[in-house]
Parts: sequence; structure tokens; C-alpha cells
Amino acid sequence: MALQSLVRLSLDQPTYAVCVMGTETVVDLQGCAPAECKFFEIDATPGVVFYINCRPTKKSPSGTYKWPLESEVEMIVRMKAPSSHLNDQKIRISYIGSKSSSDKALLYLTGVKISLDVDTCRKGKVKPTKGKIDKRNWTWGPSGQGAILLVNCDNDNPESSTVDAEQETVTNSKDLNDMSLMILSTQAPKNFFNQHKLILHISKFEMDKVRVFQAEQKKMPSEYKMILGPKKPSHTLTVLDSPQESIFYVEGLAFPDADFSGLISFTISLMDVSNLPSPEAPLFEDTVVFRVAPWIMTPNTQAPQEVYVSKVYDNKNFVESVTALAKKAKCKLTICLEEENQDDRWMQDEMEIGYTQAPHKLFPVVFDSPRNRGLKNFPIKRVLGPDFGYVTKIANKNLVGDLDSFGNLEVSPPVTVGEKEYPLGRILIGNSSYPSDQSQEMLKVLQDFLFAQKVQAPVRLFSDWLHIGHVDEFLSFVPAQDGKRFRLLLASPSACYKLFEEKQKEGHGDVKMFEGLWFPGIKNKTIKEILSDKTLQEHNQYAKSCIDWNREVLKRELGLTEQDIVDIPQLFHLEWNSKNELKAKALFPDMVNMLVLGKHLGIPKPFGPIINGQCCLEEKIRALLEPLGLECTFIDDFFQYHLKSGDVHCGTNVRRKPFPFKWWKMMP
Amino acid sequence: MALQSLVRLSLDQPTYAVCVMGTETVVDLQGCAPAECKFFEIDATPGVVFYINCRPTKKSPSGTYKWPLESEVEMIVRMKAPSSHLNDQKIRISYIGSKSSSDKALLYLTGVKISLDVDTCRKGKVKPTKGKIDKRNWTWGPSGQGAILLVNCDNDNPESSTVDAEQETVTNSKDLNDMSLMILSTQAPKNFFNQHKLILHISKFEMDKVRVFQAEQKKMPSEYKMILGPKKPSHTLTVLDSPQESIFYVEGLAFPDADFSGLISFTISLMDVSNLPSPEAPLFEDTVVFRVAPWIMTPNTQAPQEVYVSKVYDNKNFVESVTALAKKAKCKLTICLEEENQDDRWMQDEMEIGYTQAPHKLFPVVFDSPRNRGLKNFPIKRVLGPDFGYVTKIANKNLVGDLDSFGNLEVSPPVTVGEKEYPLGRILIGNSSYPSDQSQEMLKVLQDFLFAQKVQAPVRLFSDWLHIGHVDEFLSFVPAQDGKRFRLLLASPSACYKLFEEKQKEGHGDVKMFEGLWFPGIKNKTIKEILSDKTLQEHNQYAKSCIDWNREVLKRELGLTEQDIVDIPQLFHLEWNSKNELKAKALFPDMVNMLVLGKHLGIPKPFGPIINGQCCLEEKIRALLEPLGLECTFIDDFFQYHLKSGDVHCGTNVRRKPFPFKWWKMMP
Repeated sequence: MALQSLVRLSLDQPTYAVCVMGTETVVDLQGCAPAECKFFEIDATPGVVFYINCRPTKKSPSGTYKWPLESEVEMIVRMKAPSSHLNDQKIRISYIGSKSSSDKALLYLTGVKISLDVDTCRKGKVKPTKGKIDKRNWTWGPSGQGAILLVNCDNDNPESSTVDAEQETVTNSKDLNDMSLMILSTQAPKNFFNQHKLILHISKFEMDKVRVFQAEQKKMPSEYKMILGPKKPSHTLTVLDSPQESIFYVEGLAFPDADFSGLISFTISLMDVSNLPSPEAPLFEDTVVFRVAPWIMTPNTQAPQEVYVSKVYDNKNFVESVTALAKKAKCKLTICLEEENQDDRWMQDEMEIGYTQAPHKLFPVVFDSPRNRGLKNFPIKRVLGPDFGYVTKIANKNLVGDLDSFGNLEVSPPVTVGEKEYPLGRILIGNSSYPSDQSQEMLKVLQDFLFAQKVQAPVRLFSDWLHIGHVDEFLSFVPAQDGKRFRLLLASPSACYKLFEEKQKEGHGDVKMFEGLWFPGIKNKTIKEILSDKTLQEHNQYAKSCIDWNREVLKRELGLTEQDIVDIPQLFHLEWNSKNELKAKALFPDMVNMLVLGKHLGIPKPFGPIINGQCCLEEKIRALLEPLGLECTFIDDFFQYHLKSGDVHCGTNVRRKPFPFKWWKMMP
Repeated sequence: MALQSLVRLSLDQPTYAVCVMGTETVVDLQGCAPAECKFFEIDATPGVVFYINCRPTKKSPSGTYKWPLESEVEMIVRMKAPSSHLNDQKIRISYIGSKSSSDKALLYLTGVKISLDVDTCRKGKVKPTKGKIDKRNWTWGPSGQGAILLVNCDNDNPESSTVDAEQETVTNSKDLNDMSLMILSTQAPKNFFNQHKLILHISKFEMDKVRVFQAEQKKMPSEYKMILGPKKPSHTLTVLDSPQESIFYVEGLAFPDADFSGLISFTISLMDVSNLPSPEAPLFEDTVVFRVAPWIMTPNTQAPQEVYVSKVYDNKNFVESVTALAKKAKCKLTICLEEENQDDRWMQDEMEIGYTQAPHKLFPVVFDSPRNRGLKNFPIKRVLGPDFGYVTKIANKNLVGDLDSFGNLEVSPPVTVGEKEYPLGRILIGNSSYPSDQSQEMLKVLQDFLFAQKVQAPVRLFSDWLHIGHVDEFLSFVPAQDGKRFRLLLASPSACYKLFEEKQKEGHGDVKMFEGLWFPGIKNKTIKEILSDKTLQEHNQYAKSCIDWNREVLKRELGLTEQDIVDIPQLFHLEWNSKNELKAKALFPDMVNMLVLGKHLGIPKPFGPIINGQCCLEEKIRALLEPLGLECTFIDDFFQYHLKSGDVHCGTNVRRKPFPFKWWKMMP
């Protein structure tokens, strides 16, 4: 889909034209044709291929052809190879009229090769495209095309404390590996580039999203020059006449967002500067397109690779439990020490670890929440590193609320809804049920960013009925061997009431909750007392209706049926918050708020009624989950997490294995 | 695609549920089933329809059915009609176990009607949707769905000097006609709304793009209350129990733009407030979506309806010529008088008149350029009015350049490029050939706006080679009876040289240009002198290469062939501009810069060499265009326009008939 070019002939003087390999030159045969002309003949040197859209007449006896000069006749010329010398190919058009002598037009052609290429076919290699591929188009799907750019958001520079994308230089060859290759192949005869120049350019509207470095032979990557980037939309290249490949490394500076589709085009323009003082004129252009790779989240069904937990003054046992579980699941464990977390134990809330991927490279990327409590610096200081990227969204500190913590940002396993496939799942965020002056929503900058990634179309749930307001307080996903290969776990007051009613019927009505715990705030109620507590019933009626609402939204938006859902017994109670609103809190450790490491589940120990030597809640959970092939480990988080309004999931974070499915193969 | 709702039964006490007409209620049969239960029986009142996903067993001898209580059994309930009284429908589930007595669960149902409807089918009327239409989805194309909203950008208020969208009230019934209807149909039994409330809401991210007024019986439109709008994302409705239609009028406040897709959703939420002090809980929601109609340009091939021209101190004859042409073409004529134009004659540059359309309404909309010279106030003061909308984009005055005038904003007739159809044509804008520190581009706010309209995907041309830099200096479109029903006219130095060479060969080399004109700046050169002027040849070689570049871009982007193009003889010359750049100007009145009123063309009189009593340029133009069924009127604009760097097109503007094709039927 390169531009054609048009050549107009003259009878008075030869015409000179440049033909770029792979393009067509249209020769205007009519423009200079003498009025009385009826036919024309063509002589061309062997390096020229031409097509004419009418039938020739054989001229006897010499055997050459003549063509009728009809009104719609069009001649198209291509070059077989780049020229060795300027104007080394020639076409002579002889116009045959009624007079015996014929008028002649001469066209001298210079063939040059100019091709800008990227990894259009997404093979991890730059190859010149063949045939009808329009390099300007970026398309999704299994047979899509168009190159991919990574945001260079890791840090390969040991001396830097920020992401590579903020540096105007290349750090080293590792830094180069994060960039996408762009190659300009040129071949032109001697002196051609005295009269022509090549400009590599990008739209001024896109220049702040990208940086281009030009490789130079015998130079270190750190010596490569930045030729395009913020404030630098075009660059005149120094090109040799001899066959040459100019190598460029391209880095993305920003993920897709509300005001940035992610698409970035580069154009090489051949300008004619032979007619000074006339200004340069465009002769040819070749354009390639990149899409900046999105940030992608990983659901609980992806294998865990690294577990994160904060060590604070009082959570030694918890850290030991998480350590043991991580060991079982064969995960790396990263403990954030007290001097780095300023007593902030909510590892889940400070960050979400996803990844980004191009055909040539993949690395994890931590999305740093604007929440910014004690763990504020952990993502950038400890998680960011070589091949571990970092992204954040800046927000007005006064506007950041509970819903902007990343316990309120989860993702489903891959699902299909009707005919629509979500091979990377769908992002789940919690909001209010409807907006009002008092209502809370996740910040616009966060929602905009999440929606703009496109590949995990977010679903908005209703989470603002909870004191903390995070979706991980009422839902989780666990892997399964059957069905859709996962189950949605939902906190269920009904299931808990049903269980307790059964236990009461079995004669255990006087067994107490929280047996063995002692703490001023805990009321060790019996099963019977819980069942007969009207206020608690009302509170749980409310919690139930809010969870049921989300259940139906999840069923619709993830294409789930009741068979895909497991109800996890859980009670809630309502408490007034600082804004004088009644909001729900888990009455006992919130079991869906679990750490999922493959088949190993780290579940908040509920401290339920102990019957026949077993906690009946734990027993129920095991009965529900073990048949799915899962192993339940109950972790005591009561004093250090639960009483501080969070549980195991809130206190941990996980880096997971990226999807084998490549995001560009989906149809968003 | 309404949400289902879930009801859980209890053996201890009756359950109460609300069923919204058209939705399904899933009844959880398992939750309360006694452990030993094997079968269940159902008794339901006649107003209830239920489905169960397993086969019943006939119970002898009474003839009633019993169903096996399998693990995957699911019961779905629908109501036949809204209830007359609260809980007037009932289902009794009898669980049959091993014991002779059966446990019973009672479910009382209240049917209500709640439906939010808009003109989803684009018929110009609001009708409740039937069947499987998902009212939340807006789709393009001939079988697309989803309602349409107009930006209320006209001015129906005689006392206002701005657009209706800037007023927080409804002016009158004419103002209402510009809005889209949204109807909430409700029917519920007595006292239902004591325990439930209805909230109409919109995302906080979209609330500044729209305003909703609620109609009230026996009130004037001007008394209608604004219930949603900027800073007001939700509104609690006062609804009667009896069947009721609440009528809302919706106005758009902004056209689609870089940060606004144009989609706006409204949701009605039914909240349960029966459990105070527990907070309200969501029970049901119904969502509808609008797309704000784009601003659409009209090409020269659309019939003219109104011509605009500035009257200044020296252009009496020009205005008379335009008046005569408008009369011939049966167009309305609007003359902007001297007191309103402050000597600004460039009517084309100050504004572009397009239109906007919804199924129920269509009106023209003037797009006011940020150019803002003498005609600055004309669009808002004189063009804006009842059923004549207005839109502008604010820009930093210091950044506004020549390329932001709307002589640099044109639109092609409808075209097809390969398999891609552009039934409303494509917008054409002029830019530099590549961006640099010195280069000019059309302002980002303008380009963003034009691209965001989506239905006339813009094409960027190279116009910055011209002194003024507008696309209307080298191209125009005229209607034709054959082929694609139009021709692209391109200014052509080659065609002019060819014509002059022919004339010289015929012996007219000594005939002068500009015969009869006398003015200090004009050199009346002869044909021979022009042909032998090497500098002029170089200048035109440059102009030719720039126009040829655009020719090939236009061929590719509009799917044109050489047969669709007519070369209009034209010469240019280069002059230094104030930035010390050599830029091109038309050497004689720029004939493609014409006023096209149907078949009547108002062409700048070129004052070419007069041969045999006829201007050879005019003769040539007639020979090229009259066979297409066009009538050429040459208008003398020499001193008043041409010498001031513009011509007839620059000095005029046209409102044209909107396309018969409706924009929502295309696939952008």
C-alpha cells in the first residue's frame, strides 16, 4: 500500500524520476502527446518492467509493438533492482501521428530501495513485509498484523532509581532488549543522497509517548543517540549510497490511557532537495505502526511465582504461615521488612503485579496504587528492577479513597460470555451502586487506565456496602480441574446460617464462636445466640442482598452459572463509619479473603464453633473445596489482620505466571 | 439482558421477593432443603410462571407433579403481570423426604413494572424494546441499535446570546424538540414505593456531557426541572404506585472529542429501603445508552441551500456576482455587512457549516474556527439561532495559525476505498509534510475534534507548501452525472504549461496575461515570456510535485483513479513569507478555488491570454467542465481577493443539504 508516484513526460526535454523498489510509478502518456497522435511505441532498458492497460498492435515487419493512445491509457512502471548509477534506466516513448516523423519523450529512471520495517508479523524478528500487507494498519486477532512496543518501564540502570523510560539515554544492551527494533533498509546509486534526504518522523501528538535511538557501529549502546522523542518529532538521517541497514531501537514511554490509544506510527519520508532554492518536496513515504503493549493482570488460576508479605512488629506467626505456604507451593517469598513498610501490613492494597508482553520480550510490571501509606515506596524501591517494570497513576492525595486500594482490583480467569471471548479474563473493580455526593468510586485516572488496556474489559461491581469497600472482601477465584477450570467463591451469609442451623439441630446450639481467643472486643456468642440475634439477621440480610446483586452481575458479565459458584459461609455485621454511614464488616475472619497459590489455599482461620474437636466452618470449607483438588491451610490472622479490618488476602500479594495466550491474538 | 435476581427460601418463615416484569427470578431450591429431602412439589398462584430444569414425576392419584431434588435443579420464576397488591402471588415448595410429613417453604411475590426506554431502534419514537435486545449496547451499521442524542447547540431562546446547552433550563417546546425522549414506565401495587425507591443515574465521568429534564403535567416546559447534569449524577424519583410514565428530555452538551467517545448511559436502579436502618440495597437496574450525534460536513456534491458572503468597502461587484450566482442556483443569500465583519472578507476561513442528526431531528451546525479575525462574532451572532447549532474549539490565541482557518478543512463526496465505504465522504485537512520545529499543523484541538466525529475519517494532506496553506488552494470537488458522480479538480501547472505551449505553437506566443488590468504589482507577461521563464518553471516544478504528492494521497485514501481527476490549468510562483520560507501563491486567480452551487460554478476569472476574443484559460476550463453538465461563471475577484491571497472560495461559504444517508447506518 505504498503511494504510487506520477511522472509527466515532455517532448522538449528528458524527464527524470526516482522509483522506489516495491512501488509503482504511473507515467502520464497523455500530457505531452501531440494532438494528432494515434499510437505510441515504447523502448525500455532491461531493468524496467512496464504495464499498459490496453492491447498492443504488432507492427510489421520489425516485430515491435505499438499501442493505441486511447483516452484512458495508463502506463505503470516498476524497477527490477536498485540502480547502480543515477538515471541508469531509460524509457523512450515514441508518439506516432499522421506525420511520418514521430515525437519522442525520454524518461530516465533511478531505482532506489527505501524500506522501513518492524516486526509487523509479530514473530519477534524484523522482516520486510511481502505482498499486500499495509504496514500502516494495526489489527487484532489470530491473523492480525502490526508491531508491538513495550513501555520501557523496568530499570536496567543500577545507578538509577526510576524507570528506564524516564532516561534519555540507553543504559546498556539489557536496556536495548526491552526496545523494539525498527530497520531502515536503503540502497541508492552514488550521489543520490546529495539531491535527496531521508527524514524519520512521528506525529507531534504522539512524540511524547516514544523514544527512538539509532544504533551506531562500533559504539556502545549507551552512546546511541536519541533521534526522536518528546519535543523531537523528526530527524534527518545520514544515509550512505551503498546498501545499508540503519538500526533503530524504539521504546514506549506510556501505557494506553484515556487520551492515548496506544497506536504510534513512524514514517520515513524521501524528500527531493535537488531544486534549491525551491523548498524540499516529498517524493515517497513508508509508514509502520506499533501498538504499545497493555498492562495485563493475572488471575488466581495462574501459577504463583512470588509471594509478598510485610513483616511488622506483631505478625511473626502470620509471616511464618505465609512462608510455609509459599514453600509448599514452591514460590519465591519476598518479605518487606519493618524499615521499608512503616508498619503497613496491607501488601495487597499497595500494588497489583501484572505483566506486559511483546513478541520479543515479556516482563512483570507492578502497578503502584496511589493509596500511598507505609508501603508507599516498596513498589518503586524494591519491586522495580531489571526486567521488572513499574507503572503508577498520579492522583490528588485528598481525593484518594479506600476504593483506590488494589484489594479492590481483581481479575477473573478466562471466560466466554455468549459468543464473546475474554481469553485473559475480565478486570473486576468495586464502586458504589450509584453515584451521589456521598458515594465513592475508584478514581477516574485508575478506571481510565484499566479500561484503556482493552484486553481485560473491566466489570464494575458494587463494593461500597463494605466498611473497607474492596471486592476481595466478598469474592475470590480458585482453580478447579473440571467445568470452566475455576470456581468463583462468594461470601455467603445464607450458607453460614444454614450451617449453623444444621449444627443447632444436631444439638450444638450452645457451642461458642471464637473459643480460645481472648480480647476485650470479642463477644464469644453461641450458635444459638447468633441464630436468634435479630439485628445480626438484618445485617446479614443486607450483606446477602449486596452479595447477591454482585453474584448476578458476575454471572451476566462473566457468563457464569450457579454451578460455577461456591458459597463460602460468612457472616457480616454493620458498623457506623466515620462518615456516619452503616457499612459491613466480616464478623469473623473473612474466608474468601484468601491467598491462592495454585492448589494451596491460605484461608483466614475463622475461629468458628468447635464441634467434635473440629471447627465446623473449617470443616465446611474443606468439604466444599477439597473435592476440587484444593488444599486448605487455615492461617491465624485474627489479631494482626482481621481485627484491623483485613485478612490473609489483604496482607499478601502474588506475582503469577503470565498467560500463555498472547494478548494481540484476541479481539477486544 | 436484564439482571436476574436470586431468591433464597427458608422453612422457618415466608420469603418475600420483588419480580420486575421481563426479568427472571432464580429460586434457590437447595439452600433450605432438609438433608433427607428427595423430591419437591410446587403450588403456585395463577399469576406466576415457573420453569424447572428437570423432568417431573407424576404423583398418583391426585395428578399433581413432583420433581426430583437433584443437585443442579434450578427454578426460574416470571410474573405474568404487575401485582395489584403487595405479595399477591405465592409459591409453595413442599420438600418430600423420607418422613411422611413434608417441610414447606413459602415465597410471596410482588410483580412490578419498571422499564427505562429510549429510541433504541432509531425510529424517532420511544418504544419498549422486545426480545433479546441489550439496551446497554450501542452498535453501528444498518442493523445497529442504540439511541441518539443531539448536542443542544442551537439557540431557541430569543433572550439568550449563546447555545441552549449552556442554559440549565428548558426554553420552550421548540427547545424540547432538540432533546431526546427517555421514558420510565412503572406500575407497582399500593405502598410498594414506601419500601422501595427509584434512582435515575449516570456515571460521574459522563455527567458533564448531558442534562436531563423531567416533564411535569400541567407545567410549561420552562418549568421542567433539571434532574441530572453536570455535578448531578443521580436523582431519586417520586413515583406513584399506579401505572405511570415518567417523561424525561435529554440534551447532549458536547460533541464526541479526544476524551469523550460520545456514549452516555443512563440507569434506573430499584433500591430496597425496607430494612432501615440497614442501608438501601440494589434490587434491579435497567440501563439505556445514547450516542451523541457527530458533527457532519457536507461536500460540494450536496445541493446548496444558503450562500454567505462578506460585504466590505471595495467588493460591491463581487457581492453582486455571488448574488447572481446564488439566485441562479436558487439559494438563499446571506450578506454579512461591514459593521459585522470589520473588513474581513474571508468568509470561508471563519467557519464551516455542517449538521447534526438524530432520528427525531436534524439541524445545521456551524463550526466556528479559532481563527477569529474580523468575522469572529459572525458565527455566534448571526448564524447561531433556532434550529441552527454552533460549536467551536477554544485554543490559545498565540498558537492559532493559518492552517486553522477552514479553507483548510474540506470534505470529499462519498467514496469507497477497496471494501471500505465512506458514505459521508472523508474530511480533508492540510498539514506540513513532516513535523519539525518550524512546521505548521492544524491545531490538536481541531484535529482531535474532527477525528472524534468518526463518520468522515479525516485524511491529512500536505498544504503547508502554500503561502496561506489551505487545501482549497489546490483542490475542489464538482458534481458529475457519470462515474463516481463527482470529479476531483486539482490545480495543475503541467496542464497550464501544456495549454500555453499549444497556444504558442498556434502562433499566440505574444499574447499577454492580465490584459485590461492595470495595477502597479502586475507584470503583464506574454505566453512566450511565461514559457521561457526558468525561475517560474522551477517554481511550478515544485508546486507540481507538491500537488502530485497530494494527488497520490487522495487517490489512495479516497479510492480514486486518474479518470476521477480533472487537471485545472494553474500556475504558481514562490515568495518569501515572514518566516523567511519560500511558499507558493497562485500566479493568476486560482481557478480551483471556486464556489460550487450544484451545477453552477463560480470560478475566479483568471485573466488569461485572450485569443480570438476569448480567454484561453476560461475556454479550457469550459471545455473540461461543461461536458460534465456544469455551468461556468467566471467571477472577477482580482483586486479584492486574488491580490490579497485568496479567491472566490475563500470569500464565500455555503450551507448545503444534509446527506440522505443516516450516519448511524455506516460502519466507521
